[in-house]
Amino acid sequence: MWGTIMDYRISENVKNVKPSAIREIFKFLSVPGLISFAAGNPSPESFPTEEMQKASNAVFQSSASAALQYGTTEGYAPLRDWVKNRLVNKFSSFTVNDEVIITTGGQQGIDLFSRVMLNAGDTVICESPSFIGALNAFRVCGANTVGVEMEEDGISVSGLESALKNNKGAKFIYLIPTFHNPTGITTSLEKRKEIYRLALKYGALILEDNPYGELRFAGEDVPTIKSIDTEGIVVYTSSFSKILSSGMRVGYLCGPKQIIDRCVVVKQANDVHTNLFFQMLVSKYLEDNDIDKHIQTIKELYKRKASLMINGLENGLSGEVRFTRPEGGLFLWVSLPDGDSSEIFKSCIEKNIAVVDGKAFLPQPASCSSVRLNYSMPTDEQITRGTEIFCANVNEFIKR
Amino acid sequence: MWGTIMDYRISENVKNVKPSAIREIFKFLSVPGLISFAAGNPSPESFPTEEMQKASNAVFQSSASAALQYGTTEGYAPLRDWVKNRLVNKFSSFTVNDEVIITTGGQQGIDLFSRVMLNAGDTVICESPSFIGALNAFRVCGANTVGVEMEEDGISVSGLESALKNNKGAKFIYLIPTFHNPTGITTSLEKRKEIYRLALKYGALILEDNPYGELRFAGEDVPTIKSIDTEGIVVYTSSFSKILSSGMRVGYLCGPKQIIDRCVVVKQANDVHTNLFFQMLVSKYLEDNDIDKHIQTIKELYKRKASLMINGLENGLSGEVRFTRPEGGLFLWVSLPDGDSSEIFKSCIEKNIAVVDGKAFLPQPASCSSVRLNYSMPTDEQITRGTEIFCANVNEFIKR
Repeated sequence: MWGTIMDYRISENVKNVKPSAIREIFKFLSVPGLISFAAGNPSPESFPTEEMQKASNAVFQSSASAALQYGTTEGYAPLRDWVKNRLVNKFSSFTVNDEVIITTGGQQGIDLFSRVMLNAGDTVICESPSFIGALNAFRVCGANTVGVEMEEDGISVSGLESALKNNKGAKFIYLIPTFHNPTGITTSLEKRKEIYRLALKYGALILEDNPYGELRFAGEDVPTIKSIDTEGIVVYTSSFSKILSSGMRVGYLCGPKQIIDRCVVVKQANDVHTNLFFQMLVSKYLEDNDIDKHIQTIKELYKRKASLMINGLENGLSGEVRFTRPEGGLFLWVSLPDGDSSEIFKSCIEKNIAVVDGKAFLPQPASCSSVRLNYSMPTDEQITRGTEIFCANVNEFIKR
Repeated sequence: MWGTIMDYRISENVKNVKPSAIREIFKFLSVPGLISFAAGNPSPESFPTEEMQKASNAVFQSSASAALQYGTTEGYAPLRDWVKNRLVNKFSSFTVNDEVIITTGGQQGIDLFSRVMLNAGDTVICESPSFIGALNAFRVCGANTVGVEMEEDGISVSGLESALKNNKGAKFIYLIPTFHNPTGITTSLEKRKEIYRLALKYGALILEDNPYGELRFAGEDVPTIKSIDTEGIVVYTSSFSKILSSGMRVGYLCGPKQIIDRCVVVKQANDVHTNLFFQMLVSKYLEDNDIDKHIQTIKELYKRKASLMINGLENGLSGEVRFTRPEGGLFLWVSLPDGDSSEIFKSCIEKNIAVVDGKAFLPQPASCSSVRLNYSMPTDEQITRGTEIFCANVNEFIKR
């Protein structure tokens, strides 16, 4: 009876947004014996649980009432200061014209910026493929997402210029330039400069999403786009999800004050502030522990797992199949010469291997013959065995 | 230089939204000797810090990795189940046609529902005055907020019908029917039924906000509007902010599945899920402790403080000044026969008493001669002394 009498008159923006396609995969993941390369999660080994428990007890001992009371929307000042210092010292990505706020995960940073910037019908230019969570945040605002293909060293610059020309007034360019999700690709410094130049030329802002920036296990650091932002057009988002805990939902947004001020107004209406206890816990943890030492252990873990997977793919895959060799982060991208990625996904599931159908990551409907693989979650044994099965399956798939 | 070259092209919806006016008050609150009746916070005495620390350690011991990992958008299942049971057993406010999700505070429940329902230009009908956080959530969606005056027992029914007639297609009616913020008024059952009838008649949904529903210290419980929702038009929001901890940001939203499903899609884009550790902590706390016993201590605390304040006002205020006598919650409302509430606010500050300018709570610009007072935060001594000074000041103000 409900909902038949009522047409609930859902808003135009939300009517057409589907849940993340990745959730559909979850149905398959409880099959016994299944090896999953489909996760988006950091390894549970990356959570320093003992030290976090110590920090938790310290917060309870010293500041329980304050930690459980309402806080400010901008976030816990000592944590904001830590983030500013980190952005300055490690990334050269914060200046006197910027402000930093604490967000409920990096996702909320993307969502707040979207709500501040986007009118329904506005255009966001993205890498293709791109991060599903961001694409959905843009779509919930009623924006059009336009994709520009990626090359081995980042977005196609000529493709980006065409997209900016064809979408005059595009509000911003959304990028994950370091250890890109889903491809694992890192955009070269040269391309970053070109992207910046084009953004200025066409009056678009840049949303730089850098959740994996601390997780480099090979190669050399590449400066962030924010670090070359002389004109105040880059807003930068990141989080503690991949270096401390994903489930606690503590991230940050950094950008020109005028924009961040608007994000604060929206955040206040959204959730008032991020869980204050965990902001204080993280601050205490950072005070009492060497985060870089901890990050080093995560890098070593992911380096080992990535190497196992990459070696397996190098040894096992037919030469027609390309795949990325990430220098950090959680993912790599396998591209078949042809075939529908949904069929590729299905054939893998039939062999009890879960990957992510590449189509889910596209800003615009298009053909796709790629799938995303994750190496942070499976055990070494699962990576070794699973990669072998995956390669055999893919090689067979090509021959169809 | 930044922002002068760039017109940041903020979205239409957000361009015109101001921060909560209450934040402006914060500047005044650090004056030494100031007595503040301006808070919106629950008393820190209402946080069971020892038991929460025990629950925290229990979660670390048993489930640290799971608690720090990504969770599901809908929320931690045992906590959702507890909420469903509570809604059924205590409030008769959940049926098989409903769904419950965990939100990042009650605020996020309001925000998600707004994003799901509101197109820019849509109308939300509110009590006048109403809760600032909700008004801002509606405004951030580009909605118009139309106010209907409140009477001693709730919104004016004839006023509501006029508003529905004059705003055909109004999406929903927003109410805080129990221990209303800012007035402390409880809407009678008779009026709740009338409101429901009118909502059905004019095709509007109802957003029932009940953050204080557990905090009754006088009188009898009044059934929620959700409990008489035979047609599936009521969405209900509440939280643990006033019975466990406000700063942890754990709330819930309950409503018809078709609507809540859409809220899940938006929440996923907003912040993926609410801090999982605290969802598990709350669940553990509820398992190991008697929440009703704890709530009873809060009721006694607020009863005592409210009585002190009400007695002070009864003894001290000139007969021309009206004020509400709440049966629960955190606030009461003082209405002068005339005068600008901003001037009333200023005159109180000059006497080192902070209240909240009633104008901040209006859905539409209008004259206002009322201020909100809070009794949960000040000490008994501050209430006694501050109320005396407040009354003297108000009596003098009237004579101007």
